[in-house]
Order: sequence, then C-alpha cells, then structure tokens
Amino acid sequence: MNCAAPDTGNMEVLAEFGSPEQQERWLRPLLDGEIRSAFCMTEPAVASSDASNIATTITAEGDSYLINGRKWWSSGALSPDCKILIVMGVTGEAADGHGRHSMILVPRDTPGVQVKRGLTVFGYTDGPHGGHAEVDFTDVRVPKENMIAGEGEGFAIAQARLGPGRIHHCMRQIGAAERALDLLCSRAATRTAFGKALADQGVVQDWIAESRVRIEQARLLVLKTAWLMDTVGNKGAHTEIQAIKIVTPAMAEWVIDKAIQVHGGGGVSQAFPLAHMWASARSLRFADGPDEVHKRSLARRELRKPRAQGPRD
Amino acid sequence: MNCAAPDTGNMEVLAEFGSPEQQERWLRPLLDGEIRSAFCMTEPAVASSDASNIATTITAEGDSYLINGRKWWSSGALSPDCKILIVMGVTGEAADGHGRHSMILVPRDTPGVQVKRGLTVFGYTDGPHGGHAEVDFTDVRVPKENMIAGEGEGFAIAQARLGPGRIHHCMRQIGAAERALDLLCSRAATRTAFGKALADQGVVQDWIAESRVRIEQARLLVLKTAWLMDTVGNKGAHTEIQAIKIVTPAMAEWVIDKAIQVHGGGGVSQAFPLAHMWASARSLRFADGPDEVHKRSLARRELRKPRAQGPRD
Amino acid sequence: MNCAAPDTGNMEVLAEFGSPEQQERWLRPLLDGEIRSAFCMTEPAVASSDASNIATTITAEGDSYLINGRKWWSSGALSPDCKILIVMGVTGEAADGHGRHSMILVPRDTPGVQVKRGLTVFGYTDGPHGGHAEVDFTDVRVPKENMIAGEGEGFAIAQARLGPGRIHHCMRQIGAAERALDLLCSRAATRTAFGKALADQGVVQDWIAESRVRIEQARLLVLKTAWLMDTVGNKGAHTEIQAIKIVTPAMAEWVIDKAIQVHGGGGVSQAFPLAHMWASARSLRFADGPDEVHKRSLARRELRKPRAQGPRD
Amino acid sequence: MNCAAPDTGNMEVLAEFGSPEQQERWLRPLLDGEIRSAFCMTEPAVASSDASNIATTITAEGDSYLINGRKWWSSGALSPDCKILIVMGVTGEAADGHGRHSMILVPRDTPGVQVKRGLTVFGYTDGPHGGHAEVDFTDVRVPKENMIAGEGEGFAIAQARLGPGRIHHCMRQIGAAERALDLLCSRAATRTAFGKALADQGVVQDWIAESRVRIEQARLLVLKTAWLMDTVGNKGAHTEIQAIKIVTPAMAEWVIDKAIQVHGGGGVSQAFPLAHMWASARSLRFADGPDEVHKRSLARRELRKPRAQGPRD
Repeated sequence: MNCAAPDTGNMEVLAEFGSPEQQERWLRPLLDGEIRSAFCMTEPAVASSDASNIATTITAEGDSYLINGRKWWSSGALSPDCKILIVMGVTGEAADGHGRHSMILVPRDTPGVQVKRGLTVFGYTDGPHGGHAEVDFTDVRVPKENMIAGEGEGFAIAQARLGPGRIHHCMRQIGAAERALDLLCSRAATRTAFGKALADQGVVQDWIAESRVRIEQARLLVLKTAWLMDTVGNKGAHTEIQAIKIVTPAMAEWVIDKAIQVHGGGGVSQAFPLAHMWASARSLRFADGPDEVHKRSLARRELRKPRAQGPRD
Repeated sequence: MNCAAPDTGNMEVLAEFGSPEQQERWLRPLLDGEIRSAFCMTEPAVASSDASNIATTITAEGDSYLINGRKWWSSGALSPDCKILIVMGVTGEAADGHGRHSMILVPRDTPGVQVKRGLTVFGYTDGPHGGHAEVDFTDVRVPKENMIAGEGEGFAIAQARLGPGRIHHCMRQIGAAERALDLLCSRAATRTAFGKALADQGVVQDWIAESRVRIEQARLLVLKTAWLMDTVGNKGAHTEIQAIKIVTPAMAEWVIDKAIQVHGGGGVSQAFPLAHMWASARSLRFADGPDEVHKRSLARRELRKPRAQGPRD
Repeated sequence: MNCAAPDTGNMEVLAEFGSPEQQERWLRPLLDGEIRSAFCMTEPAVASSDASNIATTITAEGDSYLINGRKWWSSGALSPDCKILIVMGVTGEAADGHGRHSMILVPRDTPGVQVKRGLTVFGYTDGPHGGHAEVDFTDVRVPKENMIAGEGEGFAIAQARLGPGRIHHCMRQIGAAERALDLLCSRAATRTAFGKALADQGVVQDWIAESRVRIEQARLLVLKTAWLMDTVGNKGAHTEIQAIKIVTPAMAEWVIDKAIQVHGGGGVSQAFPLAHMWASARSLRFADGPDEVHKRSLARRELRKPRAQGPRD
Repeated sequence: MNCAAPDTGNMEVLAEFGSPEQQERWLRPLLDGEIRSAFCMTEPAVASSDASNIATTITAEGDSYLINGRKWWSSGALSPDCKILIVMGVTGEAADGHGRHSMILVPRDTPGVQVKRGLTVFGYTDGPHGGHAEVDFTDVRVPKENMIAGEGEGFAIAQARLGPGRIHHCMRQIGAAERALDLLCSRAATRTAFGKALADQGVVQDWIAESRVRIEQARLLVLKTAWLMDTVGNKGAHTEIQAIKIVTPAMAEWVIDKAIQVHGGGGVSQAFPLAHMWASARSLRFADGPDEVHKRSLARRELRKPRAQGPRD
C-alpha cells in the first residue's frame, strides 16, 4: 500500500465516494501498491484560493464527459506508475458557485492528457519524480461512469479530502520546527564568534526562547485539535483546524529562519536540511488554502458569537 | 481577609517563613482585614531586573538592624491602613550575590520611613490610594526579631513569593485579552466606514482571527502550566512559568492594541477600559522580571538539553 | 499670538476661508492672543475615520442655522479663554457624501453648547485645561453669516486644515524618537545586570541599531515630503504625506517602547517622559485618520500606476 | 572585461594592492576577459561571521607558502575559465586577531586544489557554472611572490573589497523589491477571489501600502549612503553602509514574500522570478556579514556618541 500523498487522500475519496466498480478498478490496485495516482484541482489561470473559481469544464456529451482545462500542482502525475487522475471541474451552471463542481476519474493514458512539466518549490523539486506537475486536458473523453459520487458533489468531496489532511501538515511542521531548534542549539553551542559561543549571545538566546514558546503553543493547539477531531468530529473541530493551519506553518517558518541564520551559508545550502524544510513551511502558508482565506473564515465565525453589549461610560 | 496584591503574597510569606511571634503580630490582623501591608523590593537606583543588584542595607547593630535605602513600586504603601512593610536588602558580603540578601519586617510608623509619592503607570494611578509608592528608608531601626526566616534567605523567600504569582498575572491577562476581543468584535459589528461595517473589512478580520489564535495558544500554555504546578510542583513547572510570563502579557498587549485601534479616540480614553488594560499588560512585560531575563533563562535551559550531534552531509 | 493647536489651524481656516467680517470678529483676537478657539469634528457615535459619517446637523431655519449633535476630541474647548468653536456638520442631502458637509462658527457662550468633560489619553490629560473635550450641541442657534465659505465646503476646508498639519506631527515624532533613543542609550550605559552593562547586552544593542535605522529612514522620508510640499505643493506631496503618517508614529511608538523597557518601572512612570511620549505616538496611529485609511488610499494610488504586463514563463 | 562578481572585486584588489608582476600576470587577462577568478574567504568549519575565525593556514616554507584548509561559497571557482583564486588565510600568530591574516594568489591548477562541489541556495544553483563552490586546499604550494600586499594585510584588503560592494547589493535589492511590488500589483488587479479582485481586498492593500513605504524609506537611505560615499568617502559612510545592509535585504525579503503570497503556487515556482529573488534577498541577511554583526557594530557606534545626562525628575 502507498502511504504517500496524494495516494492516501485519493484512496480515501474512492473508499468514501467511489462506486463499487470504481473501487474495484482503481482503489484495489492503489491499496496493493500496483499503481499510483494524482489529484488535479488547482489551476494556473484563476485564483484557486477561491475554489469556486476552478474553470476546467466537464461537459456531458452522449455517454461521455469531455474535459478541457489546465491544472497545476498535480502531485503524483509525474510518476511513471501514475495510472489515474482525479480531476475537479465545472459540470453545471448554478449561480452560487458550490453546486457547479464535480470530480471525475481520468486514466492517465486517455488521449488529450498531457503532463507538461514539473514545478519547482523555490529551487527544489519535491519527490523522486520531479514533484508537482502542470497538466493539460484537451478534449479528454471519459465514460459517464467515471464521475465520482455524482455531478455537483465536487465541493463535498474536496472538503472531506482536504480538511483532515491539514492536521497532518501541521504535525509535520511541529516536527520540522523541533528539528530546526535542535539544529540551532547544536550549532550555537559549537560555533564561536567575537570571543564567545553563539549560544552565549543575547540575540541567539532570544531566538531560542521565542522558538521554544512558539513551538509549545502551536503543539498544544494541534493536540487540542486532534482531541476535538477524535471526540466531536471534523465539523466540530472546524475552527481549530483553521487555527492550526494559520499558526503552524508560520511558526515553523519563523523557527527555521532563525536556525538558518545561525548556520549562515550552511543554512541555505544542501549541507543542512533547513533550507528545504523552510521551502515546505513557506508553501504551506498558501497550499490547502492561503492564510488569508482561513483567517477571514475564522474571523467571521468569531463575529457570529453572541456578545454582551459593549460598554460606554 | 484581604484578597488583593500585595497582601496575599505578603501573607503567604508570613505563613511560610514567619516566626510564631511574627505571625501572631502581623499575619493574624492581615487575615482579619484589620491592617494592610506593602512589599518593598525594587529600587530606583539599580537595574532591579537583576535582583542581586538590590542595594538597600540592613545592618546589624546591637539588638537592632539599621535599614537605609530607597525603594519604589512598593504596592500598598500609600494605603492609610498599611501598617507593615516587608523590605528586601543586603545583610551580608558573600561574593556570588544570592546569599547576601534578606527580608525584614518594618512597621510603617517606624521613624525614618518616608513614603515620598505615588507612581503613575501611563498616567494612571493604580488602586484607590495612589498605587505604587516610592519609599525612603533613612536610619530605620527595627529589632532583630523582625528578620524573616534568617539572614541570607531573601532570595529563597522572593522566589517562593513571586514564582507562583506569575500565573495569576497571566490568567488575568488571558481574561483581559478576551474582554478586548469581545469589545473589538462588538464595536466592529456596529460601526461603518467607507460603506461597510468595520467587521467586514479585511484588515479588521485579520486582527480578529490573529487575536483568537493567539489567545487560544496562550490559554492552552497557561492551562498546561497550572496542571504542571498541581502535579509536579512549582519547580517542575519552572520552564512553563517563564514561558507564560514571556507569552501572555505580549499577547494581551497585541490584542488590546488592535481593540484600541478599532475604537479610535474612544479606545485611548476613559470611555472604554481598553487603554487602562493596555497599560497593565505593558507593565507586565517587565514587572516580576522583564521578558529579556526570562527568555535568557529559558534559553539556557533549552541549551542544556542533551542533543544528537548536528548533521553535516 | 497663540502658536499651539488647535488655534494655529483654526486661524489658517479663518485666514483662507473666512469672510472679512469673520476675520475681523474672530481672527484678529486670536492672532492677538486675546481669545482661544476649539475645533469640533470627530463624533463619538460614528466611525469618524470616514469623515462622511459625521452626523451633527446644521439646519437652515430662517436667518439662522440650528445645530444639533455631539462632538468629542474637541481640543481647546476646556480652556477658560476659549470663545469660539469651529463645528463641522451636515447641511445637505447629496447622496455621495462629500458635498453634504459644512463648517460653521459657534461662539462658546451660545445657549445649547455644553462642554461635558475632558477626555484622557491613556491616563493623561493633555494640556493645562484638561485636554480634549466632549461637547454637546442642543438646538444651538447661530446667524447664517457664521457659515464658513459656504454650505458644502466642509470637506475642502478640512483637507486644507488637516493635510499640511500632518507633517508637523511627524516631525515631532522624529524628535520624540530621537529623545527616546538618547534616553535608552544613556540608561543602558549606566545600568548593570547579570555582570555587564545593559549597553553590552546583545538584545539591547539590537534595539539600538534597529532604532537608529528606523529613525533615519523615517527622517529621510519626512525630509523628502517637506521638500515636495515646498516645490510641488501639498497636492503633489499627497502620497508622501500619507506615507509619513503611516510610518512615523509607528516608528516612534516602537523606539519609545524599547526605551521604556530599558527603563523598567521608571519607563512607565512620571520619572521619565517616555510613557507620556508613547501615549502621544500611539494616539497618532488613528488621530487625523487611522493608519488603515491612509494605507488603503495609498495602495489605491499605487494600483493605478501604469504597469508592464506581468510575466509568465 | 568581466563585469560580474567575483571578478570585479578581485580586479579591484589586484589594481589596488597587487604588485606590478601580479597585475601583469593576472589583472590584465581578467580585464581582457580571457580568464576568470574566484574569491575564497568563508570556511565551513568556523563561524565566518567573525572573520578572525578564518583558519586556513598559509605557512612560509623556504621560497614558498604552503596552504591548507577548506573554503566554501567560493563564487566563480566552478567556471571552466577560472584560472586564479584569491585565498585568505592565517600567516601569523598575533593574539588580537586582525594582523594574523593575509591574502594570497593561488593558480587554479596548482596541485592540491580540489573543487569539491557547488552549493545550492534554497535549491537554486546561482550562475551558469553551478554557483558557489566548496574548495579543498591540501599542501598547496605557491611561490612567495604570490602574497598580496604583504603578510598581515588580509583584513585591510577584505575591508576595501567588501565594504563598497555592499551598496551594490542593496541597490539590486531595491530593484528586486520594486519588481516584486510591480508583479504583486499586476497580479492583484487581474485575479478575483470571493467576488472581488485581490486588489480590492483590505489585507492585500495593506501589503501594497506597506511595501511602498518600506521601499521608499530604504531607497532614500541608500541614496544618502551613495551621496556620503561620493562626498566623504567610504569611511565617512561606514554607519550608513551598515544601516543599508541591515535594512535593505530584510525589506526586499518582506516585499517579495507578500508578492509570492499573492501569486500562490505560481509564486514559489519557476513560473515567476519571485522565489529565486527571495532566495537572494534571504541570503544577503548573512552574506558579507550577518545582520546581527552589523547591528552590534552600529549600536556600539551609537553608544559612543556624546549625550546629555539622562533626566530624573
């Protein structure tokens, strides 16, 4: 079984929303590790932070759907073992946005599917096969039974897929921040400048203390969120899931930045894992929804709470 | 019984370190609410962030001690009910600092005790009797039995008195921040500028979301600290007590500042409690030890943790 | 002649927009220092950051205007020498906001004018007469000739009055920041904690360096703005006037905050001028327009600049 | 003639400090563009932020010097046209640090010179030949006449070489920040999320305004510095050169970060130049001396200014 993104999420989609035929045809070989998969949602031509902007068309035509559009950040599509893509697009016309989108299964070898290039994250290609792909879909025709769950279910599936995954990202960022602080302290203890160890210099001590208290706070919030997800479910933990998505990558980015500074040239190079860790943390400030969208949503919920009338003397 | 600072802390000192005679003479009337007390530690002439700088002298002379020095931020000394002062000063000569200091009981009406003035905090006088006092001690003579616990015990008493009190400050700051966020949201919902409610403006929503996630993180860290104090004791919670002292006032200051900005002129005036709340939060960034001292200490403990050797490719 | 706010600005209004009769009646005694004046614009009941919200009514009735409303932050109104108020209010109904407002002269002793109380700034009252006043206007009747310049000219007068005054605020804040840095350095050089002078501690050095580079940058921007005002006029310097209003109070607040921290308890008390200076800097982050309004306006002008098409590989 | 780093700086070193023979042998072909050069100062094994740590040995032995050590961030060494390295190392034993270091010319093909690998900067290799090299020197023997200027002159040469070059870095960062703001505005004007253009959203407008005022302030400080360098020389502009080195990369990093956020996935990928620009800005926070070293030095000069005695009421 594959345990890496995007296969885990795709398997969850198929397990929860797939038809028995879809599960037999794609879920089983994914679980058996025979094939791999890709997830195609974000598009280069629109602000995908607002998922209702997604513009790839999935047009019914007889017994088929015809798919046209361009995706990017399609993780997994560059792997030679990738056999199936899950593609989000527009099937309907409803004015309000959300009911217009659907997800459909597209075999990798369908005519009209063209994987254009891998995308770098800063200068890194993530993963062994060149990372995240840009993929063109030109008059790609698939049978109607490839639709997942039904037309208009795209947003529901996306929420189910992305929401819980966010806590995994945050847990990994806590780990990355701890690793960075560990490297920072080790380095600071062994390097000397201007007559004393970096570890004895006030500014470095300030970074270490700030790093520790920021990590601890983020960790406690992630733990509370996990506990809520276990006890009241993903919906009940909605505010906290957004809160950790806002807090954790920014915290990790800050801590790793300080560790880089203590490592100097080593910090930005391949000599230490810090620069690559930083690039991942930075990307998470917009991946799966930019900070600004999560903050806007969290603020609106805060504003809906009942309140006593503000005082005026 | 008095429940306000500095009486609670002073009563704890007498209960834990006082002789039976001291307890009978001062603790009982304090508990009965018949008298009040003051605590005199900080001095205007030295950097009291490093308590070993404290320079007031407590000199043995026959059956008495002679006290000379100037204190300030002596909370409680301006109250007409204040009958007893606990004063920290130097009794010894030990080179390393800590064993040199002692605490002694000085009745308020002893000749040579002069309360000079109240000190303002950003223009505010805290408390009904003018707040924190500057107090001169000139050849103040008290009997030897007024020494608390014994010569050289000053630091041990100070630690026991100040340490646990810090969590109370932090809990109050969590409450202040919640109150400020409540006022911020109420105000933002009812005021309109440039055609829409402040609550609908992106920057204000950003402040609300940031406030919520900062409060939540600080609250969880304070809760963890309280749990540690209950389960492993104040010593075992030492790192966390420092962590919340670093985190919480700064967090409250940030949230209250945003609430002030949303209230405009109202925010800095007596029309709302925000400006006074802010002054308290700001003062806590150095009261009971400035942030920088707590960070330095926390960093040193972090640096002492055993670590795997840092990698190098 | 009076050189203090709000008299200087009020005299400029009368000199530029007043009728010969208004100038004879009020400008001359102001210039001679015989009387003082107040400026009544901000209102407690609306978000005055958007001046089109101002709701005090100035209603024509026969040969008079009838004024009703509540103002606050009316600087000068508490002085016993204050004889004349300049009041902004709504005379018209035009939908788009700006043409609806007018400014009118109201003698201080007109029936219906009631000065309610002085407003504190943090705990300070600014000025010898209790600072900024809250003033009620209840069926206040003044003759029609008290209108300044004409109905609907309120915004033009306000712009002419407030715009150039902003650079004076900023110049004063540069001075305040320099004073704070001077105090910070003096204090840091003479106080010792944990075995070395504060001036030798890394975090304090970091504050000093940051303070110096922030002050220098703000100073240069203020100087450029002054040069533009002299050479191309206030309109041509509009962007820069907003820029210094955004930058300078925030810079001064930051520097003064660090000076306060180095002074500990002294810093927030009356022992040093720092806390009062801080309160003034903080107030300027919303007085004469909050940062957020200036930023919004500056951003819109930036967005209107012609640009080359953004690249895409 | 080569106009790129490190050749320009190396040519300046040879023009100012080289012997006629050194100039004939190496400066002329560099000026003619026939060969290229490398500069070898930073070492992986020590904190090179304090240049007195540099530990490569240059040991006199008969008519030769024997060089042993490891360098990295040796820009230019990977070019096939690179024929000459300027290497800094220790020739003496003086206790105080600075007089111990010298610079020497090492032909690229001398036995014992081994270019190990290119170093990445956040995944990027800078330049066409793999960027910055790690270089081993093992018993590398060069004739005594390869010493530049004389033993013990290493620091004087380094100062002359690095000091003025810093303003070029800062000028490039001003340009990079302007380019990023241009891209930010273009993108924000053409992308829509949640029903309005990004350019109409408050948080994005806040970033635009902040970017503009930060760029303007840094630009004015760089211009003042250039003017000082032209009028009073590099020594007279020492404080300002440090100030712009502290201010400008951090400013550019901030602006580019916001531009990246507005571009989402495009911002961190090769689709836009932003991520690579960011990596350069970030590296300049420690290259040619980390921020912390420049701040420490600038603070010390600030502290040496004569001051009026601080007040006490």
